[in-house]
Amino acid sequence: KSGEMAKSTQLIDNETFRAYATYTAIVLLKMMLMSLVTAYFRITRKAFANPEDTASFGKGDSAKKYLKTDPDVERVRRGHLNDLENIVPFVGIGLLYALSGPELSTALLHFRIFAGARILHTFAYLIPLPQPSRGLSWAVGYAVTFSMAYKVLKTVLLL
Amino acid sequence: KSGEMAKSTQLIDNETFRAYATYTAIVLLKMMLMSLVTAYFRITRKAFANPEDTASFGKGDSAKKYLKTDPDVERVRRGHLNDLENIVPFVGIGLLYALSGPELSTALLHFRIFAGARILHTFAYLIPLPQPSRGLSWAVGYAVTFSMAYKVLKTVLLL
Amino acid sequence: KSGEMAKSTQLIDNETFRAYATYTAIVLLKMMLMSLVTAYFRITRKAFANPEDTASFGKGDSAKKYLKTDPDVERVRRGHLNDLENIVPFVGIGLLYALSGPELSTALLHFRIFAGARILHTFAYLIPLPQPSRGLSWAVGYAVTFSMAYKVLKTVLLL
Repeated sequence: KSGEMAKSTQLIDNETFRAYATYTAIVLLKMMLMSLVTAYFRITRKAFANPEDTASFGKGDSAKKYLKTDPDVERVRRGHLNDLENIVPFVGIGLLYALSGPELSTALLHFRIFAGARILHTFAYLIPLPQPSRGLSWAVGYAVTFSMAYKVLKTVLLL
Repeated sequence: KSGEMAKSTQLIDNETFRAYATYTAIVLLKMMLMSLVTAYFRITRKAFANPEDTASFGKGDSAKKYLKTDPDVERVRRGHLNDLENIVPFVGIGLLYALSGPELSTALLHFRIFAGARILHTFAYLIPLPQPSRGLSWAVGYAVTFSMAYKVLKTVLLL
Repeated sequence: KSGEMAKSTQLIDNETFRAYATYTAIVLLKMMLMSLVTAYFRITRKAFANPEDTASFGKGDSAKKYLKTDPDVERVRRGHLNDLENIVPFVGIGLLYALSGPELSTALLHFRIFAGARILHTFAYLIPLPQPSRGLSWAVGYAVTFSMAYKVLKTVLLL
């Protein structure tokens, strides 16, 4: 048992990997929050996508009117999809980057900027802030992921 | 070669990691199945998104009428997107959780409940079952992922 | 410090894992490119989703007309979502597969075919090429991921 534990905690004892784990958990939790925000707007705006979700409002036409799109709901959904499009590459490339032996301080810089940029992106999308707030915060997260991918490919390239 | 093999099978020999690998493969395969269900409904409902997909039905207007949305197709697509939104956090946070040294029995409990909840969610979405079936199965999977994230952050936090 | 480095570079010294890291970085970067292609079409087709994105075109109705969907933009977005639906399972299952101790040559075969199929899929979607180009390239990537999942479950199954 102890040998097994030693193996399982190996990676997690590495500081760079711990930093990766911390920021990955944070950005994935932030992404998960978008589901709750969507649910909040669907309920307050009474705008649902599935007939079974409106059954509590009555039968027939009285419930059917709640099957609609709402600008606020669609905005959150676009933000959620943008998270998927950008946080998935961060999680995948970030794992390889953390394993490629970067300096802890360099790795922390990457992870902190990415997490900060994505949190800003969410505020810029949901408030919404005037452009280029959202565009810039997106670009910063994108550039961080690109920088990590460059380090990964430079370190491991085996085609 | 043998030294290399020893390295590569290290993680995979850990029972908690094997459980993680098993359930991650299962939920990702389940998610992949949604593509086949979408294709099935697109073909049987003759509802396509791309002009080149309807070319076999003839030219011009006779093919154009198959470029439409269909409620059943859209339902499967919403289920597929919901899978992405929830299974991606499970795969990412679950990996960190499996490496954070939980008890095997606790880890198995998390993985089994998540996989069961997501399979129920798919049935609740596709049949569809009356609410709150889909809502509850979504919430259970969400809570499991949240619980794993809490354990990860408690174990590794390095900001 | 050196002990820490030794730990962190362990996985990355394994050739199969290096191959996995290389192809995962490539397909995730390819997926990220879809964001730039979407931005390119949104700007050249003047088709935006958010009012704040059209503010530079003036106020009121003169800007509102750019809040529209465009067939080219929607096509890229469908390609991007298809990437998410297929590259996420590859990244997750591929990691477990790389850790399950496959022969390097077999692993490389899987990774190369998947990456090639997804690059072809993108060209087939964006040009677009007549069917079944897109369908076949999708199916090849799908089959590769399925094959890796089979190897993972055969090696690690712990339910």
